[in-house]
Amino acid sequence: MPLAPEVDLSRLAATTPGMVGADLANLVNEAALLAARRNRETVVSADFGDALERIVLGAERKVMMTETDRRRTAYHEAGHALVGMMTPGADRVRKVSIIPRGPSLGITFSSPDVDRFNYSKQELEARIKVAVGGRTAEDVVFGDSTTGAENDIEQLTLIARHMIGRWGMSPKLGLVAVLPRDGAVPFGDDGFSERTHELLDEEVRRTIDEARVDVDALLRRERLRLDSLAEALLERETLDEVDAYAAAGVESPADASAP
Amino acid sequence: MPLAPEVDLSRLAATTPGMVGADLANLVNEAALLAARRNRETVVSADFGDALERIVLGAERKVMMTETDRRRTAYHEAGHALVGMMTPGADRVRKVSIIPRGPSLGITFSSPDVDRFNYSKQELEARIKVAVGGRTAEDVVFGDSTTGAENDIEQLTLIARHMIGRWGMSPKLGLVAVLPRDGAVPFGDDGFSERTHELLDEEVRRTIDEARVDVDALLRRERLRLDSLAEALLERETLDEVDAYAAAGVESPADASAP
Amino acid sequence: MPLAPEVDLSRLAATTPGMVGADLANLVNEAALLAARRNRETVVSADFGDALERIVLGAERKVMMTETDRRRTAYHEAGHALVGMMTPGADRVRKVSIIPRGPSLGITFSSPDVDRFNYSKQELEARIKVAVGGRTAEDVVFGDSTTGAENDIEQLTLIARHMIGRWGMSPKLGLVAVLPRDGAVPFGDDGFSERTHELLDEEVRRTIDEARVDVDALLRRERLRLDSLAEALLERETLDEVDAYAAAGVESPADASAP
Amino acid sequence: MPLAPEVDLSRLAATTPGMVGADLANLVNEAALLAARRNRETVVSADFGDALERIVLGAERKVMMTETDRRRTAYHEAGHALVGMMTPGADRVRKVSIIPRGPSLGITFSSPDVDRFNYSKQELEARIKVAVGGRTAEDVVFGDSTTGAENDIEQLTLIARHMIGRWGMSPKLGLVAVLPRDGAVPFGDDGFSERTHELLDEEVRRTIDEARVDVDALLRRERLRLDSLAEALLERETLDEVDAYAAAGVESPADASAP
Amino acid sequence: MPLAPEVDLSRLAATTPGMVGADLANLVNEAALLAARRNRETVVSADFGDALERIVLGAERKVMMTETDRRRTAYHEAGHALVGMMTPGADRVRKVSIIPRGPSLGITFSSPDVDRFNYSKQELEARIKVAVGGRTAEDVVFGDSTTGAENDIEQLTLIARHMIGRWGMSPKLGLVAVLPRDGAVPFGDDGFSERTHELLDEEVRRTIDEARVDVDALLRRERLRLDSLAEALLERETLDEVDAYAAAGVESPADASAP
Amino acid sequence: MPLAPEVDLSRLAATTPGMVGADLANLVNEAALLAARRNRETVVSADFGDALERIVLGAERKVMMTETDRRRTAYHEAGHALVGMMTPGADRVRKVSIIPRGPSLGITFSSPDVDRFNYSKQELEARIKVAVGGRTAEDVVFGDSTTGAENDIEQLTLIARHMIGRWGMSPKLGLVAVLPRDGAVPFGDDGFSERTHELLDEEVRRTIDEARVDVDALLRRERLRLDSLAEALLERETLDEVDAYAAAGVESPADASAP
Repeated sequence: MPLAPEVDLSRLAATTPGMVGADLANLVNEAALLAARRNRETVVSADFGDALERIVLGAERKVMMTETDRRRTAYHEAGHALVGMMTPGADRVRKVSIIPRGPSLGITFSSPDVDRFNYSKQELEARIKVAVGGRTAEDVVFGDSTTGAENDIEQLTLIARHMIGRWGMSPKLGLVAVLPRDGAVPFGDDGFSERTHELLDEEVRRTIDEARVDVDALLRRERLRLDSLAEALLERETLDEVDAYAAAGVESPADASAP
Repeated sequence: MPLAPEVDLSRLAATTPGMVGADLANLVNEAALLAARRNRETVVSADFGDALERIVLGAERKVMMTETDRRRTAYHEAGHALVGMMTPGADRVRKVSIIPRGPSLGITFSSPDVDRFNYSKQELEARIKVAVGGRTAEDVVFGDSTTGAENDIEQLTLIARHMIGRWGMSPKLGLVAVLPRDGAVPFGDDGFSERTHELLDEEVRRTIDEARVDVDALLRRERLRLDSLAEALLERETLDEVDAYAAAGVESPADASAP
Repeated sequence: MPLAPEVDLSRLAATTPGMVGADLANLVNEAALLAARRNRETVVSADFGDALERIVLGAERKVMMTETDRRRTAYHEAGHALVGMMTPGADRVRKVSIIPRGPSLGITFSSPDVDRFNYSKQELEARIKVAVGGRTAEDVVFGDSTTGAENDIEQLTLIARHMIGRWGMSPKLGLVAVLPRDGAVPFGDDGFSERTHELLDEEVRRTIDEARVDVDALLRRERLRLDSLAEALLERETLDEVDAYAAAGVESPADASAP
Repeated sequence: MPLAPEVDLSRLAATTPGMVGADLANLVNEAALLAARRNRETVVSADFGDALERIVLGAERKVMMTETDRRRTAYHEAGHALVGMMTPGADRVRKVSIIPRGPSLGITFSSPDVDRFNYSKQELEARIKVAVGGRTAEDVVFGDSTTGAENDIEQLTLIARHMIGRWGMSPKLGLVAVLPRDGAVPFGDDGFSERTHELLDEEVRRTIDEARVDVDALLRRERLRLDSLAEALLERETLDEVDAYAAAGVESPADASAP
Repeated sequence: MPLAPEVDLSRLAATTPGMVGADLANLVNEAALLAARRNRETVVSADFGDALERIVLGAERKVMMTETDRRRTAYHEAGHALVGMMTPGADRVRKVSIIPRGPSLGITFSSPDVDRFNYSKQELEARIKVAVGGRTAEDVVFGDSTTGAENDIEQLTLIARHMIGRWGMSPKLGLVAVLPRDGAVPFGDDGFSERTHELLDEEVRRTIDEARVDVDALLRRERLRLDSLAEALLERETLDEVDAYAAAGVESPADASAP
Repeated sequence: MPLAPEVDLSRLAATTPGMVGADLANLVNEAALLAARRNRETVVSADFGDALERIVLGAERKVMMTETDRRRTAYHEAGHALVGMMTPGADRVRKVSIIPRGPSLGITFSSPDVDRFNYSKQELEARIKVAVGGRTAEDVVFGDSTTGAENDIEQLTLIARHMIGRWGMSPKLGLVAVLPRDGAVPFGDDGFSERTHELLDEEVRRTIDEARVDVDALLRRERLRLDSLAEALLERETLDEVDAYAAAGVESPADASAP
């Protein structure tokens, strides 16, 4: 099935760093399928976008939510997204949505402009902040928090532990690989002392806490942008990159992969 | 088998949030079976109610209890129920009974008005308080406690541990996922330090203790309602939502799922 | 085989709470067998009593004991029994014997008047005291102790640990289920901190110690009853409920299961 | 094969408490075999004694030892034996030998006069002292010690741990069953705290140390008896009960099993 | 296929200590294959060099890297290499490259002049410093660090732990083999105390930290050489021994294996 | 094959204590094989010596070592040997060699004059000192140490742990069997407390440290003998007992097994 002339394959590739040949072939197939189901004779840009989402983010799911739950979800995702837009080192925000997918009530999807090999300390801290953003927005707006941040907390704990325990990013612990590769017994022996694990835990807690404090200040300071982004989500349910940055009143960064 | 005209299927659905298609089919079958066994030609509302109970709460069981045990059970369940009625964030109380079912001598059944996705800290604390209510009522009325609260204690410990250790609801521990998903090894490594586990245990103990103190005060203050609810249970053995709220003299909350 | 008219089946049932249908059938068979072996044509009350003992307590065993060992055993069992007779909340003493059965040199058999569902803190402490009674009697009378209390100590440790660690009966630890159900991993995670286990151990030790001190005082105060009960055992080897209470000079409690 | 008239079967039985029917049949067979091999037509008392030793102590073994090793062994066994003779509560010493058997360079064999069921604290402490006696005799006589006490140390550690951790014989730990039955997981949970294990270790160490100090004082005070017993062993290699007590100048205790 | 006259087999052997017969046969095959693929009739020196690299370092890989990533990689490898050139006891640097191979974005390859059997403390510290060099160069030049040092940190932790815990190179811990051979349970028992593991961890941390401080000072002092080496890498991508030492302005050490 | 008249079988036996019948038969076979391979018609003493070495020490191995490595190895072995010659309680030194065998670059072979059954504390300390001797000689002569002492450190750690933890040779820990038999779970329970393991580790560290200090003083005091022994090794590569004692200028001890 032919592509519509408006499809900009190079732009599409730029938003899918990390995908290899087989992934891209799969993407083209999904897009063709969607176009066929929609009775089109050419595959248009929207088909590619929707196909990409199905693959990366999971299929949308119909769920009966109360208005209270919808509002909370909107602010949760707006929190992730706004922190992602305003934190140096964070990946570009590609899409924000409060349509449930898989186990999630909403999603914020970010990706870098180019394939990444290594991450700097600043970039990792930005990832922690984006993850903290959803939960902190709930705190700022509703004054309490819910169980909905479970996955975020698990993910940011994992990043912080690797920063301190494998990547040597805490002066207190130094360049010591305390944590083993996934699933491996460290060094064929019975590992490190309790005292070292205490140091690790303290540094992890400190790293996460500092991120939380920064994000809390950011979201209070930028409350108007947060409200505006959340309102846009409640109204339109899904925002692509351009609409999301516009709704938040944040200028979209220049594309690092642009020629 | 046809339904009696008085059966209000939408109301029935409202009291069974969380049930999916197969569950509801099962429920309809059980109700039809009961109606047949009762030589009815239509399935009436009571058949649905009884079928629902069998599925959710287990079948009733005949047990020879002393009057002492019955009184204790009545106050235990009245404690759960009254705390459920008077604590903001707690689910609506649907039924209270001192007829033994499965391993329990009595039951208090609560459920939310609508399908729930996330729980707020306030709602989780309400759950802990409801679980504490049975045991605390025994303390308040009889001056001591029994082994009968074993399941309640296990359940509230589990909630409190998840609040602190997975859902980031203690400022002392912060947004750190200390506890793994059920059965999982945390992060492929040997986990967190003793000191972190001490913090977790302290916060869990504090959370449960504060709930217990609040519930103790509530039940002493509302002793008349507690007595009245327990008396009603001793007399009628099972109270549905309307009768339970009436016996306690507590106004039933508006139904959030009502149109 | 017909029952003798004097057999009071309802009284028999009252002394065997906890037995279900199959157990009772087994009991009737054993009693008939004994009656046949004794060349009787009807099953008399004594056959039922002996059959019950074989099932619950194990068969008697012939052992050559020194007089020293017999005296120690008599005081050990008299200690259990006297504490059982004089401690509020303890089960009724049904039989005391210094005829060895299975691995034991003697037995004290107690059981409640009716089926029990839950136990109060007072009743559990009474159980600990009865278990402590044998060993403490040895201390009081002979000034030292032997390895014979091994099973008692194991049993009372188990009760005290469950009181503190599962049934929330220590204010210091509060309503926290520290101990898992038998054999279960607690909460799918790596459990509680050392500090919490220390608290548990301290409370267990305190609970047992307070029981021991109380029982020591009781047995010294009631030394005459203890001697008299031990003498009766040395003379008659086995005492049933009526004889045991009589030998100790303690009034048998009213039967709670009596009509 | 007939028994010689001098064989006193009742006396033989008295030295073999704990043996059951099959053991005694085995003993009679072994004695008849030895008598046949020695070309006797009746089984004499010495055949029974030698057969008993083979079964209980293992077969003798030929080993080339230096005089130094022989002297050390003689004092080691003399230490065990003298402590056994002079400590109230210790079992009667039946035989002492410096002929190697199995893995041992010498043996001291003690047994009670009658079948034992329970052991008092005093008797257990006596067992620890007898086990300490070999090693302490080496210290007293040669000023240092060897690896030869390995089994003694393992055995006395085991006794002391059971005294404190299972039989409630330390007031510091109280009547708490800290140690599980052999091989069992304690109470289906993860056991006792480090602090409790520290208390256990301290009490074990104290118990063993007090025994060692007492035995050291005894052997220095009774050095003449120790020398005389060791000399007798070096000269005759094996001493039976009568000769051993005579060599040590200690009066053999009255036989508790004598009629 | 014949060798070109310029091939100096003895020199080749000198750069491949540790290779045994089969390895060398494999090397000759790979070189012949490359020469054939390059349509040569004799195997020249460059074929051997390229074959050796494929075997030891992995095949080169084409990767699209941003200029930022290339610069970071160049300084990372230049850091390893310069520390290797200027640290007494470090192996000779044979090649530096920023062409990705296997999982790495660049490589620095060092090897000793002769087969090594044992390593001195000074040589092991030099290995730690070379491993630290890449990460520290990033710190010095870019002011922060990335996840790219993960393997370096794992490797240097392993060396430092063996120095302290198996090779007795810390006076604080002394000549105690705390760490087991790879995968072995230490001494068939439950190992060393927490306190000993704390000492081990402290000494490991100190060892690594001192190396890091020294390397940081070296790279700041020799910043000009570091820049010059990184520039050469950015320009030529791969530097052999002669070019690398020249670019850094460091005199290549005399060859210890030279006749 | 006949033995040469000069072969002194009784002397040979004296240098191989611990060998049993099968071992000796194997030795005779190996010696005959060597003699045949050397085209001799009788087996001479040297054949036996070489055969013994192959069996006990492993076959010699050809390795290209630098002069630096040879000198270090010579001093390492000379350290072992000199400490063995000059420490009371150490076994007689039979052979010293810097010809690599198996995984070792050199060997020092000691054995007692007679079969040993037990070892005294003094003898075990002597073993530790001999093991420390190689590493300490490197320290004394070259000012640093290498990885080559890995096996020595493992061996002396094992001896020291057994001295303290199984053989009761530390007053601080007393006669407590802390360490289990190889591979065994101690006492079917979960073992000793951290505090006890700390005591064990401290005593092990102290024992090894005192040995190291003594050996350091000895080797500095006897530096001339150490140099002379090392020089002899560098010159002749292998020294037998007579030559080794002569090169060190130490009088060979009288043979305890001599008639």
